[in-house]
Amino acid sequence: MKQKITFPRSEKVYIPGKLFPNMRVAMRKVEQVPSTTFEGEEKIITPNPDIFIYDTSGAFSDQQITIDLKKGLPRLREEWIQSRGDVEQLSEVSSQYGRMRRDDHTLDSLRFEHIALPYRAKANQPITQMAYAKQGIITPEMEYVSIRENMNCEDLGIETHITPEFVRQEIAEGRAVLPANINHPEAEPMIIGRNFLVKINTNIGNSATTSGIDEEVEKAIWSCKWGGDTLMDLSTGENIHETREWIIRNCPVPVGTVPIYQALEKVNGKVEELSWEIYRDTLIEQCEQGVDYFTIHAGIRLQNVHLAEKRLCGIVSRGGSIMSKWCLVHNQESFLYEHFDDICDILAQYDVAVSLGDGLRPGSIHDANDEAQFAELDTMGELVLRAWDKNVQAFIEGPGHVPMHKIKENMERQIEKCHNAPFYTLGPLVTDIAPGYDHITSAIGAAQIGWLGTAMLCYVTPKEHLALPDKEDVRVGVITYKIAAHAADLAKGHPGAQVRDNALSKARYEFRWKDQFDLSLDPERALSYFHAGKHTEGEYCTMCGPNFCAMRLSRDLKNTKTKE
Amino acid sequence: MKQKITFPRSEKVYIPGKLFPNMRVAMRKVEQVPSTTFEGEEKIITPNPDIFIYDTSGAFSDQQITIDLKKGLPRLREEWIQSRGDVEQLSEVSSQYGRMRRDDHTLDSLRFEHIALPYRAKANQPITQMAYAKQGIITPEMEYVSIRENMNCEDLGIETHITPEFVRQEIAEGRAVLPANINHPEAEPMIIGRNFLVKINTNIGNSATTSGIDEEVEKAIWSCKWGGDTLMDLSTGENIHETREWIIRNCPVPVGTVPIYQALEKVNGKVEELSWEIYRDTLIEQCEQGVDYFTIHAGIRLQNVHLAEKRLCGIVSRGGSIMSKWCLVHNQESFLYEHFDDICDILAQYDVAVSLGDGLRPGSIHDANDEAQFAELDTMGELVLRAWDKNVQAFIEGPGHVPMHKIKENMERQIEKCHNAPFYTLGPLVTDIAPGYDHITSAIGAAQIGWLGTAMLCYVTPKEHLALPDKEDVRVGVITYKIAAHAADLAKGHPGAQVRDNALSKARYEFRWKDQFDLSLDPERALSYFHAGKHTEGEYCTMCGPNFCAMRLSRDLKNTKTKE
Repeated sequence: MKQKITFPRSEKVYIPGKLFPNMRVAMRKVEQVPSTTFEGEEKIITPNPDIFIYDTSGAFSDQQITIDLKKGLPRLREEWIQSRGDVEQLSEVSSQYGRMRRDDHTLDSLRFEHIALPYRAKANQPITQMAYAKQGIITPEMEYVSIRENMNCEDLGIETHITPEFVRQEIAEGRAVLPANINHPEAEPMIIGRNFLVKINTNIGNSATTSGIDEEVEKAIWSCKWGGDTLMDLSTGENIHETREWIIRNCPVPVGTVPIYQALEKVNGKVEELSWEIYRDTLIEQCEQGVDYFTIHAGIRLQNVHLAEKRLCGIVSRGGSIMSKWCLVHNQESFLYEHFDDICDILAQYDVAVSLGDGLRPGSIHDANDEAQFAELDTMGELVLRAWDKNVQAFIEGPGHVPMHKIKENMERQIEKCHNAPFYTLGPLVTDIAPGYDHITSAIGAAQIGWLGTAMLCYVTPKEHLALPDKEDVRVGVITYKIAAHAADLAKGHPGAQVRDNALSKARYEFRWKDQFDLSLDPERALSYFHAGKHTEGEYCTMCGPNFCAMRLSRDLKNTKTKE
Repeated sequence: MKQKITFPRSEKVYIPGKLFPNMRVAMRKVEQVPSTTFEGEEKIITPNPDIFIYDTSGAFSDQQITIDLKKGLPRLREEWIQSRGDVEQLSEVSSQYGRMRRDDHTLDSLRFEHIALPYRAKANQPITQMAYAKQGIITPEMEYVSIRENMNCEDLGIETHITPEFVRQEIAEGRAVLPANINHPEAEPMIIGRNFLVKINTNIGNSATTSGIDEEVEKAIWSCKWGGDTLMDLSTGENIHETREWIIRNCPVPVGTVPIYQALEKVNGKVEELSWEIYRDTLIEQCEQGVDYFTIHAGIRLQNVHLAEKRLCGIVSRGGSIMSKWCLVHNQESFLYEHFDDICDILAQYDVAVSLGDGLRPGSIHDANDEAQFAELDTMGELVLRAWDKNVQAFIEGPGHVPMHKIKENMERQIEKCHNAPFYTLGPLVTDIAPGYDHITSAIGAAQIGWLGTAMLCYVTPKEHLALPDKEDVRVGVITYKIAAHAADLAKGHPGAQVRDNALSKARYEFRWKDQFDLSLDPERALSYFHAGKHTEGEYCTMCGPNFCAMRLSRDLKNTKTKE
């Protein structure tokens, strides 16, 4: 497996904190070539500024650091966590299942070797970023994200509202989430909230018997290379405990899971045998491995399940259909809803965030914005307040399939009913008729809902509805969602967001092809397409050729002007 | 070259007119398999309705018709045109250049053999669809589009406002354009206007020495297969007169060109040598070949050219930069603006529509909605009234690169300043940072502006800014734009637009995979992605596998419910 990540003419740089001078924020710096112009015969060389790019690739792109997947990434946050003095390292893992797997020596060959013992909050210590924020404490994590969100601003004199104190306020009020499980100190801090850069999540994970551990770790690193801000491991097959350990130890971004998937594996796929006890043990197991956020479908209420019967496509959320079935089989309120306070008590001990899963999200244009969907949203609004009471950071998952004219209602209603908690949507897909191209149908909706205020967009790959994505699908899915998120950042006027567009466009106008490629989201692809043109005339691409190159003609104009 | 177009389980059908019973409107019919459900042990089979799909593939998808590219397509509209009695067939082509090419026997091997003599309006006869519409005449072309726009409505009892009389009114008032050069009788009537289905245009054409005639004709047919509603031939290399003839004779959709490109070739690329006389001859040449609409950059005014100097990217329209340079070199108003009435007099004789080219469209996020762009829009608003005075159908071209929050202003201003003439935009691209993926950056903008009222979207391929598109790029570009256009149709509530989404989603829910594929925009790709999953378990795709298939669980729920 290729472990190093490189980008052309890019350098890994670290910006030190001001409040925490030992803390260094990683970024990618692209050095531009200077511009060349002529005044008469005189050649004038003007330098172009370095451009900083938000970097999710962690130590993999630092050529100074030796990567050893068997040891995992450097534990960046461990010192910060320890120095707060409010957590303790346990003498062994707490979950039954975790111990069982540990003691099963047939798994030794699969196992990540250097598992550290887990941390947990000392008794009655509130250790979440939200708890600190409410107390007025600015953590290194908070300063980290403030610097990260402001790239290029200081250098180019762009005003910004994103101070460490602003970050603290947003977290304290629940408008933003900083996922930061104390057992995933390898992750670089990032923030999810509508007053910050729009983030994207990528999903990986095997199903049934497809793909092994190596392949999933490789996909995780690959996703981080292209710009995934968080990573959900949705594995449902064999050895998901061990796969997850490998992924978390080598993942520089927050990791999310849907614990009900593993719980269901533990009862051999028999929904009716799921129980609070099995689920609880799974939560603890994953909290101690270092999962940063859990999707929990606690919004499914027995009284609302029947609402999906009116639909064209019923329930399309895996977790939603599992919990709905459980409720009906037992004719009982779901244990996720009933035990939601207990769940929050567990999550608070590790600073795991809850992502309230939308089990009743619409799976077709026909079902968008229906009673079932909005009834669940109301429940999520109730649950988010309960999470905050326990200092658990929370966000809300959203659709799905929604035609453009119904997107706004989703966002406005979510803000109102869920008290400004961040929204995290899957697309939405704005039409159902393009399987094979659903990264595009969904990017159209994602860009719009991101502009309206959605904080994180869950990517969709070209294989959606058809098959598990391969590496190429992951790449295309990530880039497509980087586009949607960045388009939303521009429309929201995020400070400095337009710097990269301006630099790339200036490079394009000046025929600095290398800069145009190197500043783009996918330099390799841009370059390969350019070469596919078999252009022979140096400066001009085959799209128009030299005589019809508007950029050349437009530059000539300036000279025409000068001659007058 | 493969000439026949096939789609799985599809049949070419023809719906006869009511006003014109001999006129038959082509559509594609997809037959669905029935649904199977169980009530207890009893198997219940319920049929699903046929779904009609808007079909741009012409005779190529009619298995009853023998295609011979050397003879061209059937001349569908010739009888309608002749029967109106207001045109005459000329004894030879009128343009000097056309005669010169005809008499050059070194071109014989390249030439389309069966060139018919051109038609032209009899003296003082107003023969445009707009002229008829203003007189209250409903033509067969108008009824054709009314039936085409209403597919599925009558069968499924969906109300629609699109009657032949409504079509007539929209054309009379300039809100819609029905491109219909009397010398392109092979084209099937279609309509461009904001109260109709959103249309997409695809661009083909060689540049410099890339690609030959065969390849361009093949791309044209390919574009029509995937759903291109009109086709612009932007060739700028050798033999563009002959290439164009081959394309038009074999093109079932309206063809557009930018005549200034060919005019520039005639003066060997020397902008300063362009003149009204050369341009005029080029217009006549192309009118008589059968081009259905011309992009004409008559909105470039000498007084406005300097406005582009403030830009990051100057002028990015090829036609715009050519005309701007001409104005500056001669320090003179452009001959396109000065001779606009003469241009309209020519176009009216053949019913060629004018597409007012936006020579000053922004080519970067930075330059969007600037003074240069809007000054040109004001001029276009003046010109469109002059076109309508001559009964010339007209539409307006638009940007380009525009961030999402500036899209609405474009649409609203265009409607106001251009008196409701249809808008035809390129994208817009909502960010500059994704070369290699500009079909996606632009589809995000295209869907939005389509929803807001843009009538036709010019496609962008993955190779935009980098190289000429190949066949695969054309396919991806067309499908991407079909998605954007269809998303806009759904959001606008076009009658019957949601029928296909509902049918596909129902098929998905019922595991009728074949229907899911066959109803999709690109059945071949959807199927190949499904197979790439190497699924072995029949009904389930590898994305979730059988135990985690929400659709299966959701169907199970219904049974769970029943058992209670």
